[in-house]
Amino acid sequence: MTSPEPVAPPLRRRGERMRRAVLQAAVDLLSSQGLAGATVGAVARAAGVHETSVYRRWGTRENLILDALTTELDAALPVPDTGRVRDDLLAFFSALARLLATAQGGALLRLSVERDDTLEDRRGPYWSERLDRAVVMVRRGVERGELAADTDPGLLIEAVSGPLFVRVLLSGAPLDDALVRELVDLALDGARPR
Amino acid sequence: MTSPEPVAPPLRRRGERMRRAVLQAAVDLLSSQGLAGATVGAVARAAGVHETSVYRRWGTRENLILDALTTELDAALPVPDTGRVRDDLLAFFSALARLLATAQGGALLRLSVERDDTLEDRRGPYWSERLDRAVVMVRRGVERGELAADTDPGLLIEAVSGPLFVRVLLSGAPLDDALVRELVDLALDGARPR
Repeated sequence: MTSPEPVAPPLRRRGERMRRAVLQAAVDLLSSQGLAGATVGAVARAAGVHETSVYRRWGTRENLILDALTTELDAALPVPDTGRVRDDLLAFFSALARLLATAQGGALLRLSVERDDTLEDRRGPYWSERLDRAVVMVRRGVERGELAADTDPGLLIEAVSGPLFVRVLLSGAPLDDALVRELVDLALDGARPR
Repeated sequence: MTSPEPVAPPLRRRGERMRRAVLQAAVDLLSSQGLAGATVGAVARAAGVHETSVYRRWGTRENLILDALTTELDAALPVPDTGRVRDDLLAFFSALARLLATAQGGALLRLSVERDDTLEDRRGPYWSERLDRAVVMVRRGVERGELAADTDPGLLIEAVSGPLFVRVLLSGAPLDDALVRELVDLALDGARPR
């Protein structure tokens, strides 16, 4: 792994290189063995570093895993702008469903709902920041007259994303494109006779 | 506490009386001190029984807490039948929101999403059984012509309940009657201009 900053001081480059190796090892272990397999010892061995170095940098196993997953998944949820609100919502929530259906996405969500004081500041925000960015799709739909002027953008995002999260966390029911389509259409058109 | 079965053998009555005292102590501790405060030791002390008796009966702390919460909350979600689908949905989901906003309801939901092999068979079903019962409200709405004939009852229930669960588990945002009303109306009428 090469550093993108050629003039960085050797110590920082070593630190950054170590950081990336550890995070990559954590993601690989999470993918292959799930949350339970990604112990600090296993991650340190896979990354070729001392376990104490991992604890010095991340403090706890949960912080390490959270850092690994958020770094890995950061680019996974782009907000589309197709010019039609239904297409935007379908693209965004299909990507969310695919993300949640992966081992890493499921692990990150599970980790996000576990109570742990050392993580208090960082877990909730990961998902709410991503959903907050999606609100702009609904606002554009209102501006184009596709949606009622009094539409609550955050509420619409919650109504479509909520069942996806709950299927992963609670029911274990599958996430697929048909589900996303049904949820988007229910939020757009409602269940009343047309 | 008196037993409702006057002819039960003394040994069974003692067992049932002990069971109820332990479950009530667990609910009281959960309400006053949250999940972390309801240790087996604390519950046993509050109920006036030996800790070993609790372990003999429930096996694990998680089983004990789950038994306490499901017993306590079993009657909390009646399915209404007012003759109008919107009123039924508002009553049912307002009760769900109130339940989830209590210390016990929140604790039960959190416990339901924690992975634990000893609980595998009983946790998910608690919530899905209650939501399954709610499906009949939607079916009656379809039969009365209030909802489109192709309405997916389970999906509508998921679209309203999902955000309530997610607010408790992930965002910590408040659950109130206005939120329930907005979610029900979105699921019924959609966000398109009327």
